Amino acid sequence: MKLKLGMVGGGQGAFIGGVHRIAARIDGQWELIAGALSSDAERAKASASDLGIAPERAYTDYEDMAKAEAARSDGIDAVAIVTPNHMHAGPAVAFLRAGIHVICDKPLAATPEQAEEIAKAQRDSGKLFILTHNYTGYPLVRQAREMVARGDLGELRVVHVEYVQDWLAEETTGKQADWRVDPQRSGAGGCVGDIGTHAFNLASFVTGLKTDKLAADLQAFVPGRQVDDNVHVMLRFAGGARGMLWASQVAVGNENALRLRVHGTQGGIEWAQENPNVMTFTRFGQPKQILTRGGAGSTEAGNRVTRIPPGHPEGYLEGFATIYNEAAAMIRHADRGEALPKGLHAPNITDGLEGMHFISACIASSKADGVWTPLG
Amino acid sequence: MKLKLGMVGGGQGAFIGGVHRIAARIDGQWELIAGALSSDAERAKASASDLGIAPERAYTDYEDMAKAEAARSDGIDAVAIVTPNHMHAGPAVAFLRAGIHVICDKPLAATPEQAEEIAKAQRDSGKLFILTHNYTGYPLVRQAREMVARGDLGELRVVHVEYVQDWLAEETTGKQADWRVDPQRSGAGGCVGDIGTHAFNLASFVTGLKTDKLAADLQAFVPGRQVDDNVHVMLRFAGGARGMLWASQVAVGNENALRLRVHGTQGGIEWAQENPNVMTFTRFGQPKQILTRGGAGSTEAGNRVTRIPPGHPEGYLEGFATIYNEAAAMIRHADRGEALPKGLHAPNITDGLEGMHFISACIASSKADGVWTPLG
Amino acid sequence: MKLKLGMVGGGQGAFIGGVHRIAARIDGQWELIAGALSSDAERAKASASDLGIAPERAYTDYEDMAKAEAARSDGIDAVAIVTPNHMHAGPAVAFLRAGIHVICDKPLAATPEQAEEIAKAQRDSGKLFILTHNYTGYPLVRQAREMVARGDLGELRVVHVEYVQDWLAEETTGKQADWRVDPQRSGAGGCVGDIGTHAFNLASFVTGLKTDKLAADLQAFVPGRQVDDNVHVMLRFAGGARGMLWASQVAVGNENALRLRVHGTQGGIEWAQENPNVMTFTRFGQPKQILTRGGAGSTEAGNRVTRIPPGHPEGYLEGFATIYNEAAAMIRHADRGEALPKGLHAPNITDGLEGMHFISACIASSKADGVWTPLG
Amino acid sequence: MKLKLGMVGGGQGAFIGGVHRIAARIDGQWELIAGALSSDAERAKASASDLGIAPERAYTDYEDMAKAEAARSDGIDAVAIVTPNHMHAGPAVAFLRAGIHVICDKPLAATPEQAEEIAKAQRDSGKLFILTHNYTGYPLVRQAREMVARGDLGELRVVHVEYVQDWLAEETTGKQADWRVDPQRSGAGGCVGDIGTHAFNLASFVTGLKTDKLAADLQAFVPGRQVDDNVHVMLRFAGGARGMLWASQVAVGNENALRLRVHGTQGGIEWAQENPNVMTFTRFGQPKQILTRGGAGSTEAGNRVTRIPPGHPEGYLEGFATIYNEAAAMIRHADRGEALPKGLHAPNITDGLEGMHFISACIASSKADGVWTPLG
Repeated sequence: MKLKLGMVGGGQGAFIGGVHRIAARIDGQWELIAGALSSDAERAKASASDLGIAPERAYTDYEDMAKAEAARSDGIDAVAIVTPNHMHAGPAVAFLRAGIHVICDKPLAATPEQAEEIAKAQRDSGKLFILTHNYTGYPLVRQAREMVARGDLGELRVVHVEYVQDWLAEETTGKQADWRVDPQRSGAGGCVGDIGTHAFNLASFVTGLKTDKLAADLQAFVPGRQVDDNVHVMLRFAGGARGMLWASQVAVGNENALRLRVHGTQGGIEWAQENPNVMTFTRFGQPKQILTRGGAGSTEAGNRVTRIPPGHPEGYLEGFATIYNEAAAMIRHADRGEALPKGLHAPNITDGLEGMHFISACIASSKADGVWTPLG
Repeated sequence: MKLKLGMVGGGQGAFIGGVHRIAARIDGQWELIAGALSSDAERAKASASDLGIAPERAYTDYEDMAKAEAARSDGIDAVAIVTPNHMHAGPAVAFLRAGIHVICDKPLAATPEQAEEIAKAQRDSGKLFILTHNYTGYPLVRQAREMVARGDLGELRVVHVEYVQDWLAEETTGKQADWRVDPQRSGAGGCVGDIGTHAFNLASFVTGLKTDKLAADLQAFVPGRQVDDNVHVMLRFAGGARGMLWASQVAVGNENALRLRVHGTQGGIEWAQENPNVMTFTRFGQPKQILTRGGAGSTEAGNRVTRIPPGHPEGYLEGFATIYNEAAAMIRHADRGEALPKGLHAPNITDGLEGMHFISACIASSKADGVWTPLG
Repeated sequence: MKLKLGMVGGGQGAFIGGVHRIAARIDGQWELIAGALSSDAERAKASASDLGIAPERAYTDYEDMAKAEAARSDGIDAVAIVTPNHMHAGPAVAFLRAGIHVICDKPLAATPEQAEEIAKAQRDSGKLFILTHNYTGYPLVRQAREMVARGDLGELRVVHVEYVQDWLAEETTGKQADWRVDPQRSGAGGCVGDIGTHAFNLASFVTGLKTDKLAADLQAFVPGRQVDDNVHVMLRFAGGARGMLWASQVAVGNENALRLRVHGTQGGIEWAQENPNVMTFTRFGQPKQILTRGGAGSTEAGNRVTRIPPGHPEGYLEGFATIYNEAAAMIRHADRGEALPKGLHAPNITDGLEGMHFISACIASSKADGVWTPLG
Repeated sequence: MKLKLGMVGGGQGAFIGGVHRIAARIDGQWELIAGALSSDAERAKASASDLGIAPERAYTDYEDMAKAEAARSDGIDAVAIVTPNHMHAGPAVAFLRAGIHVICDKPLAATPEQAEEIAKAQRDSGKLFILTHNYTGYPLVRQAREMVARGDLGELRVVHVEYVQDWLAEETTGKQADWRVDPQRSGAGGCVGDIGTHAFNLASFVTGLKTDKLAADLQAFVPGRQVDDNVHVMLRFAGGARGMLWASQVAVGNENALRLRVHGTQGGIEWAQENPNVMTFTRFGQPKQILTRGGAGSTEAGNRVTRIPPGHPEGYLEGFATIYNEAAAMIRHADRGEALPKGLHAPNITDGLEGMHFISACIASSKADGVWTPLG
């Protein structure tokens, strides 16, 4: 039986909603049957119709939707929230209170206050809250995490992560750009929230390291821009490892260059999402190895979320789909009261709060001229 | 409304059936509702159950299935045939005769006779026959074809294509390997049929060139192997261009290295499926360009089949899904009696026959010590 | 007529001395005819003999050598100083005072005081002082500088440079390692002086930007190490551009990974010394280009120092040789009292002092917990 | 003591002569002291003067030079012949007869008859004849040969080699192009002689395989061209391995793309000269390794001809220099009557004759419509 999915946001013209829908379809675990796809009634209706959602399950108000779906015997199992950042907290709280699991786009919210509201609602409800830090769904990212955890790299020393784009290098207009550079909708962080949090989450996920404090230098290069578009951060991790993080939306020549490098006493790895089926691994003093998804040297954690043989590339949508798969498995197990199988993982409210702390610390440090600032 | 899909083959333990199913799901155009998933009754039933197929639509015999589905008012719109090569013709003919569109894995058949049977049934039925030469679904492959067609490369001179693996470098056993090295099931061609046809199809698709004749040197390197596992071919195209084709399943260090290089009087391109979101293009005398899927310099033909922004990799499954998408669009247009929209494309019976001619010519040339042998 | 070269340091067992000698030979501008190759008399003599230096030109003391060579009518035109850092100032001052041009390995000295001594001697003597920041000799580095200068990248915004190795990831012994981790010989900076200065110099050379201030986080990861082995720096340039610099000798999986990325309002470039014949360049909104040394799109500044056709790689030694070539041309022009030809360039005492300021600022900032620290 | 080198050809405006001179200088083993640099007296004189050759050692006739140098007590130890192909035999024979070692550019000659003349003169004289198949001087090429020889790849099965350029894609004029497309000067083979022989030699050198027979398809794509500019060859090696060779001067988008792939029962390697400091190696069933020149996993044969640490690229000139180094060592050992040290290697007359047989067989096979043609 497929699980029943609802969606808030993601109407005609939106980007990430479509991604969530493909992700939900790929492995056949989900069926989209309800939505408040737009706050504009006409668009909401038309969007629902495009997607084969029955008219009576097409809402214009997420509060109504939460109540109505909670009341139905065939109500949705989970809702996907794919609105701009400032519109996460409202629906998240509403659905959690209605006893419906939530899958939410990142970052968690536009403000720390909103984030805390969501966290409280999650705790009170006991429902699942899954944040789509989708890059954690890539098989080689899972494998990297496993390799670090089992000691292949020795004790970690230096972590470098970057997420670099150029699409906001000039003053831009358009649905995707507009809200991201508007602090009312994106929150105080621009680039740091939009992609810096992905980079931070990826580094945290793979290394398992907690960031003690950071020193940041944020800049808005495009004239008139009210949020940062380039982010430089130095990191100090608990236990002594050090790191650097770079996020930019003005680095001409880059599309979605998310890249992670981790170095320990005995090994180093390097992975980049633009060619995500390949990772290099070097044991100190030995030749560098090219590890491929599912290929020689692949590990349980990566193979668990791999669909096709090595050499046949999986991509962004498959990684995203893995988050939806994990969510489905979690819901099925939770509903049956079973323990989760080993290796199952999805980013959760804690990751969301850490991302918010990261944003806040970056902004605070940068305002204080780069002073080392603790997280959380 | 989703189209209704049936499947022949693809039961538990199969590989390519699962790929077809994901491909059919990705864009939400298809719903799998019937299947003769295995000739083993128990496995057929269990496999159907796994896939949410209703018991009354789970068949053990494709003839029964073709008749029953044709008779139902809610019968399937198309059937996907995902059996080993020697089992294509039977179901293909049965479903075509029953008036049901067919989507069939490649190569077309195990023998020229079977291929002709299918072709005849297709002509007689007037139904769609789509062959899943899935690599033609990659956006940059579409773009390459468009660039060649509009003259970006000038007049073509030299074409190099290769599809190189190593998974059969040793005597292997297992469901995937067994039938591929058994001439009764794979046909007289081993590697040449399994992946050589993909390479040949890709080169033909992108360049638009017809192969006049070829000189081949086929070899079975693994002791005791009854079909070729390494294929060297020189090609002469109508109009004077020349080419080389290499297919191998024993080239240690390769996974699914399908790579195409096309050179004309004014430009050259290079594409490889293991990192399919990137293609290089050089105009003579100018710097080489890196073209990305959907990125700067991308064209209509590629963008038409692109789902997500550049820098977010799409992969093998998305390319495969595009074939299913195109099939869906063709069926919808055919059912409405409408002309197909510009740019829509799916490999068809003609491609299948050309692939069979390619296999036959390679085997004939190689037996005749490499004599230049015409195709078809 | 070849110019006459002397050498201080570089006896048997040394590394960089041999590099200087090859560099001096490649283009046939220099002849090595004198040396104080070791402070050990036996080794000095044997080393000289190996290199075909006449016994009467083989010295054990650089002071003696400076005096003797200055006194000869056939005395050396220039001396190459290839000793450990703390041994640069002595010979540099001695030869400059003796009226002999100096070519000196980097960094300039072990201490700011020594650096100032050299600078003063250079000013007083009016002789040439050339610092072998050899990476500035790579043709594509010259081209990158020219492209930035002529505005191909627009106004610069973000600069990333890194020089990453792993050879000191463990406690090491050996002639090359020993002095580099001994603050008495290397100076207070370890990695920051040895390779951080190369990275800093490369970024400065290509961008033409002056660094206003920096915030640094230096670390000695290897237990017991007395100098830094990993260096994180954030940079603020005059005019508003920002940067990051990473230097490491403990990043497992890296050999000599010196890499520069420069992004401006209209374009971005990326270059890495391990494959130095290739550079990417992207104009905003256009496909990324692969520029090759001497190939399509190459420019005057790079071609001026290119020896062979594109596709035939030049390497580290050729880039180093270009510094020796430039030095030779400078000396010939200086001796003739002629103006230098356009484009001729060699790193000089100013670059050396800036490198020393960079080291000092990094150490000071890091000690002050990362406070933004001005240079110079 | 440096060895004394003479040169025939390589006057002003020539390309390869300058390469030979740099190669001879790099390791300090040679001194250029005589030359017949041009058959034009003025140019010969001016070229000699540029190079610091004394007027009395500047000849206009190679016969005169051979006699005069043989007669001097300080005569040259070896002569480098860097003329177009049809001008190799004359000077080669003259110098060999005069008892002077010969270093000659490739291919051996313009015609089989000339080649035999040289071979005879070499046998009669007992002097060294070294052919500058310079790609055999790359450290990783030496290492690849060693790895094959010691069995790292198991029994060889499939060899692919290609040398691809685009500089003759259009009708070209200029000193370098002119003689290469003139059968009077280049010989009957165009591309096949100029770069096909390099590819053939590289494959033979690394694999140690003898080519039994080949089937070739040669083409002249540029209208009016009298020699081939694109070469397709299938190869059968003694012992059963198979191969393909592609050489082209019209493949737009390529500079000097010489690339070798060797696959055996247990391993595969891949190397390309445009980034020659890197080679991949895969043991069957294990992750692909990236081997770097001098890095982890490097071997004796490569390290023997390596000058600088891994990560600092060596290039084309260093590989070429290694041939000169080996020549110097051979001469010194020959003069002392000593056995050659292990590992020392330079391409010789046998390689030259095999290259000529390769050219002849390619032309013969292609004329006979691709019939399998034995070599030699």
